[in-house]
Amino acid sequence: MNNDSKMNWSLDTSLPVSFVIKSTPDAFEINNTDILTFGTQGAGRRRLVIIDLKVSKLYLPKIKKFLEFHKVNYHLVIIDAVEDKKNIENLLFILQETEKFGLTRKNEPILAIGGGVLLDMVGLAASLYRRGVPYIKIPTTLLSLVDASVGAKTSINFEGRRNRLGTYYPPIAAYLDKSFLATLDNIDVSSGLGEILKMAVVKDIELFHILKKHGKELYEKKFLNCTSADEVINRSVGGMRDELQENLWEKDLKRYVDFGHSFSPIPEMRSLHDKNVDTLTHGQAVTLDVILSCVISHIRGMLSKEDVLVVMNVTLSMGLPVTHAYFKNPNILMEALNDTIKHRNGDQNLPIPREIGNSIFINDLNFNEIKQASALMDELTSSVKGY
Amino acid sequence: MNNDSKMNWSLDTSLPVSFVIKSTPDAFEINNTDILTFGTQGAGRRRLVIIDLKVSKLYLPKIKKFLEFHKVNYHLVIIDAVEDKKNIENLLFILQETEKFGLTRKNEPILAIGGGVLLDMVGLAASLYRRGVPYIKIPTTLLSLVDASVGAKTSINFEGRRNRLGTYYPPIAAYLDKSFLATLDNIDVSSGLGEILKMAVVKDIELFHILKKHGKELYEKKFLNCTSADEVINRSVGGMRDELQENLWEKDLKRYVDFGHSFSPIPEMRSLHDKNVDTLTHGQAVTLDVILSCVISHIRGMLSKEDVLVVMNVTLSMGLPVTHAYFKNPNILMEALNDTIKHRNGDQNLPIPREIGNSIFINDLNFNEIKQASALMDELTSSVKGY
Repeated sequence: MNNDSKMNWSLDTSLPVSFVIKSTPDAFEINNTDILTFGTQGAGRRRLVIIDLKVSKLYLPKIKKFLEFHKVNYHLVIIDAVEDKKNIENLLFILQETEKFGLTRKNEPILAIGGGVLLDMVGLAASLYRRGVPYIKIPTTLLSLVDASVGAKTSINFEGRRNRLGTYYPPIAAYLDKSFLATLDNIDVSSGLGEILKMAVVKDIELFHILKKHGKELYEKKFLNCTSADEVINRSVGGMRDELQENLWEKDLKRYVDFGHSFSPIPEMRSLHDKNVDTLTHGQAVTLDVILSCVISHIRGMLSKEDVLVVMNVTLSMGLPVTHAYFKNPNILMEALNDTIKHRNGDQNLPIPREIGNSIFINDLNFNEIKQASALMDELTSSVKGY
Repeated sequence: MNNDSKMNWSLDTSLPVSFVIKSTPDAFEINNTDILTFGTQGAGRRRLVIIDLKVSKLYLPKIKKFLEFHKVNYHLVIIDAVEDKKNIENLLFILQETEKFGLTRKNEPILAIGGGVLLDMVGLAASLYRRGVPYIKIPTTLLSLVDASVGAKTSINFEGRRNRLGTYYPPIAAYLDKSFLATLDNIDVSSGLGEILKMAVVKDIELFHILKKHGKELYEKKFLNCTSADEVINRSVGGMRDELQENLWEKDLKRYVDFGHSFSPIPEMRSLHDKNVDTLTHGQAVTLDVILSCVISHIRGMLSKEDVLVVMNVTLSMGLPVTHAYFKNPNILMEALNDTIKHRNGDQNLPIPREIGNSIFINDLNFNEIKQASALMDELTSSVKGY
């Protein structure tokens, strides 16, 4: 056909993305209007406020007082945002509440207040409703302060797989308020320190030195009145931002920030339902992956045994584990790696430290080496047990 | 705090997007490998093939033969992709099948074969699975050939609202194969002509002239052996592409391609379950919205009465309606407009033809004018009934 030859088009364009990550000393202090910066202004402005159950129990009166003082016409949605309920049911519940509220498309940013599970779910709902409405992240845990606050990833778990469904959908802003850390449980402080340790070992030796010196204090005092607190958060958030700035949509599957996330997703998810093993927080699972990766590095002649023991000691000083039943089981580690390979499109792309704070990617790990590393990790554990 | 002043970051980046829309004369002809261009190559390459039930009844043997000839290791998923089942259940079913298949992240593009409902649902599933896997659109209806094939919109219906959930997620390619049109029902041909009529009236007078002259023939012969077929498809797809190229993510809510989509979504959705009115296809609903908008234009002194009658006559010649119970009911039209206003972030942004093929946006339509337009539309219907 003559005209057929003309019937070819290409569509070429690009989506600009820009958002701010801003420290704010007390997000719901009555005179601090940071979180109301975006969207419609003035009395009667509408906001959908989605808040984690645990956070609501501690902060709801203060948050309500703030919203009422500023004459915000708000609709409150409380979600029990735990890993186990990061599912399609809770996502649909958020979307139904959004529909009930009748959110407009661009001028009523959703306020998401909670930890990573809540921020991930609200982000996904915001990306889906009317194909995208604006939202603002207000992280309340250490982990989400240094991790979920920076990125564009949204997600829910699906079919027993961690974060199997999601989108890349950045917020219009994230506000970091350290005052929330005061009410965290110790285990949640250590979970956040796990992600910070990851960043230190994979790419920031200075940060590692600070953790070595102050990690124990940061853990015990929950970052309050610690001289190193701001620098640790600064380096973690800044390091994350630098990685994501260049690769927000993960076009490149060699990602330093994937360190600690190669072997850990399946152990973390499975531990939630296995009564025979300790339940793992996200930061704990990441930490165990970091340790295993350091041991692999040692086996390959990069990190020294002393380096590995130093990492283990710093880990323990921050209330984090260096051993777990699943990390003694090479079959589970292999299963986890195989799923990670699918996620990395057929490649391993495993970040492995060449030295502390400086890493390479490997693509040739095999089952025998995993067995060896798992056994050595277990063996080294006894050297640091008395710490 | 001293360091606090440093704790501000911004993340600025952009997502490049590029995809091809290519005419292919017979997509599953054994020697035509267009649809296998992307992804892993060679014997044993894996593909997840998601196909509409109706299409599968007509083309499955041919498609299987094609896949087997090329030694594709495929997993077939058949979906009854009708408007009424464009829902969360079908979306989750597609995602479960994707998980079962164990799709990798970048090299195994999903093949989506069907009309707009199927393409929208598969697109949404592809955007969510692992936060995005590639997919290829193979439209099989006239409507999806000229509309869904070009865009990046994915969606499902939710809470009785058309396309309330979705994403912007372009395919890596769309292949346009006119040979599918031969087996369409007449009502599906007319539905596609409804979107083509929209494009003609809002911005392409040349296209309108062609429809006036050949619309009846195109409708009756299902585009087969019609000299104008390629040009009509060309102008429709090209016109759509030009609009989307500049505004793929709808940052600008003044969109010519929204013509016909301001009053129609609620009537279309509601007609599916209301036994007292005629069920509307998407193209029929769009057409009625086009007619109403032309009448509004006439009331405002732009289109002449003769212009409106010409549009109505062309509409009827292509098997499309010019009247419907819901379009005689100003309350339903007002309700639909109010929801559209939320979708356009508080503005009406109604595209209204100033003349056929050349439009403006209005923002001041009120209930009285809707009542007047609805009544006049009904009145004019009698003038063209004998066509």
